[in-house]
Amino acid sequence: MTTKTTETLATAEAAATGITPTSTRSPHPTTEGAHATTGNPPDDHAYVHGYSPAEARRLGDQADTLAELLHAGTAYPPGSRVLEAGCGVGAQTVHLLASSPGAELTAADLSADSLGQARARVAAQAPGARVTWHHGDLHELPFADDSFDHLFVCFVLEHLADPSAALAALRRVLRPGGTITVIEGDHGSTLFHPDSAAARATVDHLVRLQADAGGDALLGRRLHPLLADVGFRDVAVRPLTVSVDDSRPALVEGFTRRTFVAMVESVRADALAAGLTTAAAFDRGVADLRRTAEEGGTFHYTFFKAVGVNP
Amino acid sequence: MTTKTTETLATAEAAATGITPTSTRSPHPTTEGAHATTGNPPDDHAYVHGYSPAEARRLGDQADTLAELLHAGTAYPPGSRVLEAGCGVGAQTVHLLASSPGAELTAADLSADSLGQARARVAAQAPGARVTWHHGDLHELPFADDSFDHLFVCFVLEHLADPSAALAALRRVLRPGGTITVIEGDHGSTLFHPDSAAARATVDHLVRLQADAGGDALLGRRLHPLLADVGFRDVAVRPLTVSVDDSRPALVEGFTRRTFVAMVESVRADALAAGLTTAAAFDRGVADLRRTAEEGGTFHYTFFKAVGVNP
Repeated sequence: MTTKTTETLATAEAAATGITPTSTRSPHPTTEGAHATTGNPPDDHAYVHGYSPAEARRLGDQADTLAELLHAGTAYPPGSRVLEAGCGVGAQTVHLLASSPGAELTAADLSADSLGQARARVAAQAPGARVTWHHGDLHELPFADDSFDHLFVCFVLEHLADPSAALAALRRVLRPGGTITVIEGDHGSTLFHPDSAAARATVDHLVRLQADAGGDALLGRRLHPLLADVGFRDVAVRPLTVSVDDSRPALVEGFTRRTFVAMVESVRADALAAGLTTAAAFDRGVADLRRTAEEGGTFHYTFFKAVGVNP
Repeated sequence: MTTKTTETLATAEAAATGITPTSTRSPHPTTEGAHATTGNPPDDHAYVHGYSPAEARRLGDQADTLAELLHAGTAYPPGSRVLEAGCGVGAQTVHLLASSPGAELTAADLSADSLGQARARVAAQAPGARVTWHHGDLHELPFADDSFDHLFVCFVLEHLADPSAALAALRRVLRPGGTITVIEGDHGSTLFHPDSAAARATVDHLVRLQADAGGDALLGRRLHPLLADVGFRDVAVRPLTVSVDDSRPALVEGFTRRTFVAMVESVRADALAAGLTTAAAFDRGVADLRRTAEEGGTFHYTFFKAVGVNP
């Protein structure tokens, strides 16, 4: 499995959720600024679809679609120090700022280009907001121990080879009594009508490709033990399901078609190259997925949101 | 596939949810009373595990475990005429009464024995409540058109060969402007950690056996088109996920072990007889399911709750 596959999957995942994943790691975290040139090719990893204005708009639209679901209940007190680890193009950042206008937010990402887009997005959507931007690897954050009151990590762990190590590194910078919030998807939660074995197979290919690339597209279901094993206490996980049917035309278009089906279609070449399927079988699966977005179809996907406390 | 398989599945489903399914139909609805002798063998269909005091207690316990999840938001105004179609042993009935103490509730079931247990349960748990009990087939209700303001149908459609016909029959007795609430599971929503192909296969066997018996263990996902096609309007479906991990020991025991694993174990003989699996493979799957209830494991299952309006 090539690195490109990871990035293709990661791009599709970002499309699903509106953020840039942190799937590769820079060996030397730097302060942001020097590389934050919006529109330039990424400096440290290739983000295949993520740097066009249209794509950035799409990421933002999709994050907005899911924001109510994912951000409900997440509000940090004024003056609290919050780190968003893996902020990507800032699609979740603007929602964090909207929910916690008085918090002192630091947003970190491996990609300086993504950070540039995040700055632009925040400037446009939350002009008065103060954000400290950090370009670097979440495994090697330069912050002192106990630097933050709260951590927010959204759609990042599922792309990492060792999510436990990442969580341990993040816990170091969280003060005792501080909280961590983690949001991840789980492709195994995908349900649709009409059901179709061919369509389910395409989802299985996604899971397989992400596993081969060192990630875990089924991570959502194991957030509780992941956080507990790293030492967080009072871990509570809530499932958040996007449920799409004829009564929700915006989600039919924005989630089923433009997010999920697009994500599946983006791995066609990789699935064929890996010998997981034939072109005909894959295309039949995609056609069956598209059928779930037609009249009378339904589509369901569950995200998991975990909150834990640093003892 | 024998009728027994249906009933075994139905029993397990009842164990999962605390109600008696209506999986076979009496040709002639009667008024309740004559046959409502708790503890006697069922008069019109065999409910394999459902008539012992221990089993009745278990059904009640499990319904109580899920009540907050399933009944939230369901409250009918005082004086409104409500029909619970397929009330079984009354495990949901007591929660309906608690949420809507002033409603005029009619509870119907195909099994007179179950109705007798339901009466006893209501007498014990809601002694002042008035309930009209009806013994009969929901496809052939003797009520006049427009007799009810609200319908409540929980874990019934998934056992029926033609859920659309049942919904149409129910809609007849609902007044224009009245509402229907339907709650169903979907075995395809089952997610657990550690993941296991052998365990997933046992769930697939459940789905297959229920399909062979004329039911649909994947019905939850298609509630929206089902209700819309029958003519209900403003149909809105919400997913309700039971999410089990170490932080919820009552659910580990009450849902994962005593409900879901027990349901899977109850079809062992049928799965083997149908040639779906081997004893070794089935037992490995069950062992892997049990592992999800140990420390560090997680288990997730989604119910779907639909509400629609009769135009």
